[in-house]
Amino acid sequence: MIRFFERDPYSPIQYVYEVERVLYKGKSQYQEIMVIENPYFGKILILDGVVQLTERDEFFYHEMLVHVIMHSHPEPKRVVVIGGGDGGAVREVLRHPTVEEVFFVELDREVTEVSKRFFPTVSSGVDDPKVKTHNMDGAEFVKNRNQEFDIVIVDSTDIIGFAKSLFTVEFFRAVKEALKAEGMFVTLSESLHFHRELVLDVQDTLRLVFPIVDLYTAPIATYAGNWWTFSCASMSLDMRQMRREPVEGTRFYCPEVHHQAFLPKGLYERLLKRELDW
Amino acid sequence: MIRFFERDPYSPIQYVYEVERVLYKGKSQYQEIMVIENPYFGKILILDGVVQLTERDEFFYHEMLVHVIMHSHPEPKRVVVIGGGDGGAVREVLRHPTVEEVFFVELDREVTEVSKRFFPTVSSGVDDPKVKTHNMDGAEFVKNRNQEFDIVIVDSTDIIGFAKSLFTVEFFRAVKEALKAEGMFVTLSESLHFHRELVLDVQDTLRLVFPIVDLYTAPIATYAGNWWTFSCASMSLDMRQMRREPVEGTRFYCPEVHHQAFLPKGLYERLLKRELDW
Repeated sequence: MIRFFERDPYSPIQYVYEVERVLYKGKSQYQEIMVIENPYFGKILILDGVVQLTERDEFFYHEMLVHVIMHSHPEPKRVVVIGGGDGGAVREVLRHPTVEEVFFVELDREVTEVSKRFFPTVSSGVDDPKVKTHNMDGAEFVKNRNQEFDIVIVDSTDIIGFAKSLFTVEFFRAVKEALKAEGMFVTLSESLHFHRELVLDVQDTLRLVFPIVDLYTAPIATYAGNWWTFSCASMSLDMRQMRREPVEGTRFYCPEVHHQAFLPKGLYERLLKRELDW
Repeated sequence: MIRFFERDPYSPIQYVYEVERVLYKGKSQYQEIMVIENPYFGKILILDGVVQLTERDEFFYHEMLVHVIMHSHPEPKRVVVIGGGDGGAVREVLRHPTVEEVFFVELDREVTEVSKRFFPTVSSGVDDPKVKTHNMDGAEFVKNRNQEFDIVIVDSTDIIGFAKSLFTVEFFRAVKEALKAEGMFVTLSESLHFHRELVLDVQDTLRLVFPIVDLYTAPIATYAGNWWTFSCASMSLDMRQMRREPVEGTRFYCPEVHHQAFLPKGLYERLLKRELDW
């Protein structure tokens, strides 16, 4: 049996996947890209040795990344997706009939090419006429924008190495300037089990910039630590509240999931105060 | 670096742990018992090649196994813990001041001996005067009992192999007979990510026997699939409701966690009807 040993330096458990076939192995200007076939998860996309998505469970991540703030916003029209080269986040954004333009900002165009070839159900939206692709650094894209967007979504590979420019106070300030008065922002922020200090760093940094910051979680089996967090921020509106009917076509996200996903307020306060003893 | 490769035939991801030291390796009449030291999780207890608990995160599992139904019960006095030889569940049961007797039914006394030696903070309650230890099969223990207990908790190693006698309709019927009019039952039932058919089997079997059955989850990083489920059943009372003040000393469990842990009702209904397409 051939096995793939994940190389995630920030996970205290190493995950090993059975490999039925290696479907693709290449190196872009930015990273190593690999696609393997696994008997349980189907095809798996791996960047620099870390699992990014699997055919079987990608919808948990993409739906939860996108739909919580999208449903909390009263009328999201202009949406920025930074990263997410596979197209999964763009696909979910396009489910919202209010959306007029999606700015798809992915540095590495080869990730999108590989996704179109091996994950057509994930990349299905990237050629939609509403989608404007920009192959550039997301931090550069949002610089010097003034109240242009309703939603900014960060779907990056990690928050420490390659993508760390998307987790700085400068970036968050630029996002704030770029958002309209009811604008909202969301980013992955790693695992509440394994990376609590990182989660807190992201939260604290967001709080320096945005008036409303919150945290929700989703169970993702293929990301280290699994109790995956999403940090979200808003210019004026509470993101725990849904403001529109749920879109069609989701497999996990629904109004009950929206409300249950947020960390209970008492637990969230204890987390922020560093009062949790774990 | 020495590594421990978990041997869980029911996990599509294999978990690998760094081993600083092997602290114990033995074979009881029933199973292989191993204790390793890991830089992140501290000491880890492994039975037949599968991680049972880690010093760092055991409280998530033990608190969630025990406290949900214990707080839903109006006055739990006589409590049965089947399995859980490490003592973690017993420790949590003893936090409830209403408890008068704990029947600790673990087949393999060597697990308890190893736990007392290497996990004293986990096994701390097993010598409490309220605890009556019975080293025997849990299915035998509950047979031919008539309304003797308030709560029965199953903390077994797995639901397929070694412990499968604790997941049969005969066992659940015996538990029902053994419970008082307001009695409640809870058992682990594996991962909603990786073992959904098993979860459904347990749920369906419980439904053949008990008037009220429910399902809640907790995030456990060290169990395959991580989105860990607990199936619970009751003679008459809704377990989503808490009926007493929260006990002291818990690190994760709290009233908000109690309520959020249950699967949202709409999602739960779709799960039971096999309408989830994942």
